[in-house]
Amino acid sequence: MELTTKILINKNKEAAFEAFCDPDNIGNFWFSKCTARWQAGETVFLSYPEMGIFNISAKIIAATPGEKIVFTWGEGASERTVTITFTTVKNGTIVEVQEGPWPDNFNFEELLGTKEGWTFVLTCLKAWLESGVNTLRLGLFTQQ
Amino acid sequence: MELTTKILINKNKEAAFEAFCDPDNIGNFWFSKCTARWQAGETVFLSYPEMGIFNISAKIIAATPGEKIVFTWGEGASERTVTITFTTVKNGTIVEVQEGPWPDNFNFEELLGTKEGWTFVLTCLKAWLESGVNTLRLGLFTQQ
Repeated sequence: MELTTKILINKNKEAAFEAFCDPDNIGNFWFSKCTARWQAGETVFLSYPEMGIFNISAKIIAATPGEKIVFTWGEGASERTVTITFTTVKNGTIVEVQEGPWPDNFNFEELLGTKEGWTFVLTCLKAWLESGVNTLRLGLFTQQ
Repeated sequence: MELTTKILINKNKEAAFEAFCDPDNIGNFWFSKCTARWQAGETVFLSYPEMGIFNISAKIIAATPGEKIVFTWGEGASERTVTITFTTVKNGTIVEVQEGPWPDNFNFEELLGTKEGWTFVLTCLKAWLESGVNTLRLGLFTQQ
Protein backbone atom coordinates (compact mmCIF):
# COMPACT_ATOMS: atom_id res chain seq x y z
CA MET A 1 0.00 0.00 0.00
CA GLU A 2 1.09 3.55 -0.76
CA LEU A 3 -0.07 6.73 0.97
CA THR A 4 -0.73 9.70 -1.32
CA THR A 5 -1.22 13.38 -0.40
CA LYS A 6 -1.35 16.31 -2.80
CA ILE A 7 -1.92 20.04 -2.95
CA LEU A 8 -2.30 22.78 -5.55
CA ILE A 9 0.23 25.62 -5.33
CA ASN A 10 -0.07 28.75 -7.41
CA LYS A 11 3.59 28.79 -8.38
CA ASN A 12 5.56 27.09 -11.10
CA LYS A 13 7.00 23.65 -10.56
CA GLU A 14 10.59 24.85 -10.53
CA ALA A 15 9.85 26.99 -7.46
CA ALA A 16 8.14 24.10 -5.70
CA PHE A 17 11.02 21.75 -6.51
CA GLU A 18 13.62 24.23 -5.26
CA ALA A 19 11.81 24.71 -1.96
CA PHE A 20 12.59 21.08 -1.09
CA CYS A 21 16.08 20.82 -2.59
CA ASP A 22 17.67 24.07 -1.42
CA PRO A 23 18.88 23.60 2.18
CA ASP A 24 18.49 27.35 2.77
CA ASN A 25 14.83 27.19 1.73
CA ILE A 26 13.42 24.04 3.34
CA GLY A 27 13.45 25.63 6.82
CA ASN A 28 10.69 27.97 5.73
CA PHE A 29 8.10 25.18 5.62
CA TRP A 30 9.59 21.90 6.90
CA PHE A 31 12.89 20.86 8.53
CA SER A 32 14.79 23.48 10.51
CA LYS A 33 18.14 22.31 9.22
CA CYS A 34 19.38 20.31 6.24
CA THR A 35 23.06 19.55 5.73
CA ALA A 36 23.28 19.58 1.93
CA ARG A 37 21.46 20.19 -1.32
CA TRP A 38 19.14 17.35 -2.35
CA GLN A 39 20.72 15.66 -5.34
CA ALA A 40 20.93 12.08 -6.53
CA GLY A 41 23.43 10.05 -4.52
CA GLU A 42 23.54 12.50 -1.62
CA THR A 43 22.58 11.58 1.94
CA VAL A 44 21.23 14.61 3.79
CA PHE A 45 20.76 14.94 7.54
CA LEU A 46 17.67 16.71 8.80
CA SER A 47 16.43 18.11 12.10
CA TYR A 48 13.10 19.49 13.32
CA PRO A 49 13.55 20.00 17.08
CA GLU A 50 10.04 21.41 17.48
CA MET A 51 8.73 17.99 16.41
CA GLY A 52 11.23 16.06 18.50
CA ILE A 53 13.37 15.18 15.46
CA PHE A 54 17.04 15.87 16.05
CA ASN A 55 18.87 13.95 13.35
CA ILE A 56 17.37 11.78 10.66
CA SER A 57 18.87 10.98 7.31
CA ALA A 58 17.35 10.84 3.87
CA LYS A 59 19.09 9.14 0.97
CA ILE A 60 18.30 11.04 -2.20
CA ILE A 61 17.72 8.63 -5.07
CA ALA A 62 16.59 11.12 -7.70
CA ALA A 63 16.17 14.89 -7.92
CA THR A 64 15.13 15.89 -11.42
CA PRO A 65 14.65 19.68 -11.49
CA GLY A 66 11.01 20.66 -11.67
CA GLU A 67 9.89 17.07 -12.15
CA LYS A 68 10.51 14.57 -9.38
CA ILE A 69 12.28 13.85 -6.10
CA VAL A 70 12.74 10.33 -4.76
CA PHE A 71 14.32 9.53 -1.41
CA THR A 72 14.36 6.79 1.21
CA TRP A 73 14.35 7.09 4.97
CA GLY A 74 14.00 4.76 7.92
CA GLU A 75 15.77 1.43 8.31
CA GLY A 76 14.96 -2.26 7.96
CA ALA A 77 11.22 -2.93 8.09
CA SER A 78 10.62 0.80 8.68
CA GLU A 79 12.35 1.93 5.51
CA ARG A 80 10.01 3.87 3.23
CA THR A 81 10.43 5.41 -0.18
CA VAL A 82 9.01 8.88 -0.77
CA THR A 83 8.29 10.11 -4.28
CA ILE A 84 7.40 13.78 -4.79
CA THR A 85 6.14 14.77 -8.24
CA PHE A 86 5.47 18.22 -9.67
CA THR A 87 2.81 18.61 -12.36
CA THR A 88 1.90 21.84 -14.16
CA VAL A 89 -1.83 22.58 -14.23
CA LYS A 90 -3.88 25.64 -15.19
CA ASN A 91 -3.50 27.45 -11.86
CA GLY A 92 0.00 26.40 -10.92
CA THR A 93 1.53 23.13 -9.82
CA ILE A 94 0.17 20.03 -8.14
CA VAL A 95 2.71 18.69 -5.68
CA GLU A 96 2.01 15.03 -4.95
CA VAL A 97 3.74 12.98 -2.29
CA GLN A 98 3.57 9.20 -2.26
CA GLU A 99 5.12 7.22 0.61
CA GLY A 100 5.41 3.49 0.98
CA PRO A 101 5.37 0.60 0.90
CA TRP A 102 3.41 -0.13 4.05
CA PRO A 103 3.46 -3.76 5.19
CA ASP A 104 0.19 -5.68 5.42
CA ASN A 105 0.38 -5.51 9.21
CA PHE A 106 1.11 -1.79 9.19
CA ASN A 107 0.91 0.24 12.36
CA PHE A 108 -2.28 2.20 12.11
CA GLU A 109 -1.15 5.11 14.29
CA GLU A 110 2.01 5.44 12.22
CA LEU A 111 -0.01 5.69 9.02
CA LEU A 112 -2.35 8.31 10.50
CA GLY A 113 0.67 10.29 11.71
CA THR A 114 2.23 10.11 8.26
CA LYS A 115 -0.97 11.35 6.61
CA GLU A 116 -1.12 14.19 9.11
CA GLY A 117 2.53 15.04 8.57
CA TRP A 118 2.33 15.27 4.78
CA THR A 119 -0.90 17.25 4.86
CA PHE A 120 0.74 19.69 7.24
CA VAL A 121 4.03 19.97 5.30
CA LEU A 122 2.28 20.57 1.99
CA THR A 123 -0.01 23.21 3.49
CA CYS A 124 3.01 24.94 5.03
CA LEU A 125 4.73 24.80 1.62
CA LYS A 126 1.70 26.42 -0.02
CA ALA A 127 1.64 29.22 2.58
CA TRP A 128 5.36 29.84 2.14
CA LEU A 129 5.45 29.88 -1.66
CA GLU A 130 2.21 31.77 -2.23
CA SER A 131 2.17 34.17 0.73
CA GLY A 132 5.67 34.24 2.21
CA VAL A 133 4.37 32.87 5.53
CA ASN A 134 7.02 30.65 7.15
CA THR A 135 5.70 30.39 10.71
CA LEU A 136 3.05 27.67 10.32
CA ARG A 137 5.59 24.84 10.65
CA LEU A 138 5.96 25.45 14.37
CA GLY A 139 2.34 24.77 15.23
CA LEU A 140 1.47 21.08 14.87
CA PHE A 141 1.03 19.31 18.17
CA THR A 142 -0.52 15.93 17.58
CA GLN A 143 2.75 14.11 17.18
CA GLN A 144 4.40 15.59 20.23
CA MET B 1 -12.24 5.18 18.99
CA GLU B 2 -11.84 8.94 18.72
CA LEU B 3 -9.63 10.84 16.28
CA THR B 4 -7.76 13.82 17.74
CA THR B 5 -5.94 16.62 15.91
CA LYS B 6 -4.57 19.81 17.45
CA ILE B 7 -2.60 22.92 16.64
CA LEU B 8 -1.05 25.88 18.42
CA ILE B 9 -2.29 29.30 17.32
CA ASN B 10 -0.70 32.52 18.52
CA LYS B 11 -4.02 34.22 19.22
CA ASN B 12 -6.34 34.20 22.21
CA LYS B 13 -9.04 31.58 22.51
CA GLU B 14 -11.88 34.01 21.97
CA ALA B 15 -10.52 34.81 18.49
CA ALA B 16 -10.16 31.12 17.64
CA PHE B 17 -13.68 30.37 18.87
CA GLU B 18 -15.19 33.24 16.87
CA ALA B 19 -13.51 32.07 13.66
CA PHE B 20 -15.67 28.94 13.75
CA CYS B 21 -18.90 30.45 15.07
CA ASP B 22 -19.17 33.63 13.00
CA PRO B 23 -20.66 32.73 9.58
CA ASP B 24 -18.89 35.73 8.04
CA ASN B 25 -15.52 34.46 9.29
CA ILE B 26 -15.51 30.71 8.66
CA GLY B 27 -15.12 31.20 4.88
CA ASN B 28 -11.61 32.49 5.48
CA PHE B 29 -10.30 29.06 6.44
CA TRP B 30 -13.00 26.38 6.01
CA PHE B 31 -16.52 26.31 4.54
CA SER B 32 -17.37 28.85 1.83
CA LYS B 33 -20.83 29.44 3.21
CA CYS B 34 -22.60 28.94 6.52
CA THR B 35 -26.27 29.81 7.00
CA ALA B 36 -26.24 30.95 10.64
CA ARG B 37 -24.16 31.64 13.69
CA TRP B 38 -23.06 28.53 15.58
CA GLN B 39 -25.02 28.43 18.82
CA ALA B 40 -26.53 25.65 20.90
CA GLY B 41 -29.71 24.27 19.36
CA GLU B 42 -29.03 25.72 15.90
CA THR B 43 -28.68 23.58 12.80
CA VAL B 44 -26.37 25.25 10.28
CA PHE B 45 -26.00 24.37 6.61
CA LEU B 46 -22.54 24.42 5.11
CA SER B 47 -21.03 24.30 1.63
CA TYR B 48 -17.51 23.92 0.27
CA PRO B 49 -17.91 23.54 -3.49
CA GLU B 50 -14.15 23.33 -4.07
CA MET B 51 -14.19 20.11 -2.06
CA GLY B 52 -17.35 18.79 -3.71
CA ILE B 53 -19.50 19.63 -0.67
CA PHE B 54 -22.66 21.50 -1.62
CA ASN B 55 -24.95 21.21 1.38
CA ILE B 56 -24.25 19.43 4.63
CA SER B 57 -25.77 20.20 7.99
CA ALA B 58 -24.25 20.40 11.43
CA LYS B 59 -26.36 20.35 14.57
CA ILE B 60 -24.74 22.56 17.17
CA ILE B 61 -24.98 20.96 20.61
CA ALA B 62 -22.85 23.44 22.53
CA ALA B 63 -20.98 26.66 21.78
CA THR B 64 -19.46 28.08 24.95
CA PRO B 65 -17.55 31.28 24.03
CA GLY B 66 -13.80 30.78 24.15
CA GLU B 67 -14.12 27.30 25.63
CA LYS B 68 -15.80 24.59 23.58
CA ILE B 69 -17.89 23.76 20.51
CA VAL B 70 -19.75 20.47 20.13
CA PHE B 71 -21.68 19.48 17.03
CA THR B 72 -22.91 16.37 15.23
CA TRP B 73 -23.00 15.65 11.53
CA GLY B 74 -23.73 12.66 9.32
CA GLU B 75 -26.64 10.30 9.73
CA GLY B 76 -27.29 6.82 11.09
CA ALA B 77 -24.12 4.75 11.36
CA SER B 78 -22.17 7.65 9.84
CA GLU B 79 -23.16 10.17 12.49
CA ARG B 80 -20.15 11.59 14.31
CA THR B 81 -19.76 14.02 17.15
CA VAL B 82 -17.09 16.70 16.88
CA THR B 83 -15.76 18.44 19.98
CA ILE B 84 -13.51 21.47 19.55
CA THR B 85 -11.77 22.78 22.67
CA PHE B 86 -9.75 25.95 23.17
CA THR B 87 -7.00 25.98 25.81
CA THR B 88 -4.84 28.96 26.73
CA VAL B 89 -1.10 28.20 26.80
CA LYS B 90 2.01 30.35 27.03
CA ASN B 91 2.18 31.23 23.33
CA GLY B 92 -1.50 31.41 22.52
CA THR B 93 -4.23 28.81 22.22
CA ILE B 94 -4.25 25.11 21.51
CA VAL B 95 -7.24 24.25 19.34
CA GLU B 96 -8.04 20.55 19.67
CA VAL B 97 -10.56 18.69 17.54
CA GLN B 98 -11.88 15.29 18.53
CA GLU B 99 -14.22 13.38 16.20
CA GLY B 100 -15.95 10.07 16.84
CA PRO B 101 -17.02 7.52 17.68
CA TRP B 102 -15.64 5.31 14.94
CA PRO B 103 -17.11 1.82 14.81
CA ASP B 104 -14.86 -1.21 15.29
CA ASN B 105 -15.19 -2.01 11.59
CA PHE B 106 -14.42 1.58 10.57
CA ASN B 107 -13.63 2.45 6.99
CA PHE B 108 -9.92 3.03 6.88
CA GLU B 109 -9.96 5.45 3.95
CA GLU B 110 -12.64 7.53 5.68
CA LEU B 111 -10.52 7.80 8.80
CA LEU B 112 -7.44 8.83 6.81
CA GLY B 113 -9.53 11.43 4.96
CA THR B 114 -10.85 12.77 8.24
CA LYS B 115 -7.33 13.07 9.66
CA GLU B 116 -6.23 14.88 6.51
CA GLY B 117 -9.25 17.18 6.63
CA TRP B 118 -8.78 18.30 10.22
CA THR B 119 -5.04 18.78 9.80
CA PHE B 120 -5.73 20.95 6.76
CA VAL B 121 -8.55 22.97 8.37
CA LEU B 122 -6.53 23.71 11.50
CA THR B 123 -3.48 24.76 9.48
CA CYS B 124 -5.68 27.05 7.36
CA LEU B 125 -7.13 28.48 10.60
CA LYS B 126 -3.63 29.18 11.91
CA ALA B 127 -2.64 30.94 8.67
CA TRP B 128 -5.81 33.05 8.73
CA LEU B 129 -5.66 34.12 12.37
CA GLU B 130 -1.92 34.69 12.59
CA SER B 131 -1.11 36.03 9.12
CA GLY B 132 -4.41 37.03 7.48
CA VAL B 133 -3.91 34.44 4.71
CA ASN B 134 -7.30 33.08 3.58
CA THR B 135 -6.35 31.39 0.31
CA LEU B 136 -4.95 28.08 1.55
CA ARG B 137 -8.38 26.46 1.84
CA LEU B 138 -8.68 26.15 -1.93
CA GLY B 139 -5.67 23.93 -2.35
CA LEU B 140 -6.28 20.44 -0.99
CA PHE B 141 -6.73 17.82 -3.65
CA THR B 142 -6.59 14.38 -2.11
CA GLN B 143 -10.28 14.14 -1.43
CA GLN B 144 -11.40 15.30 -4.87
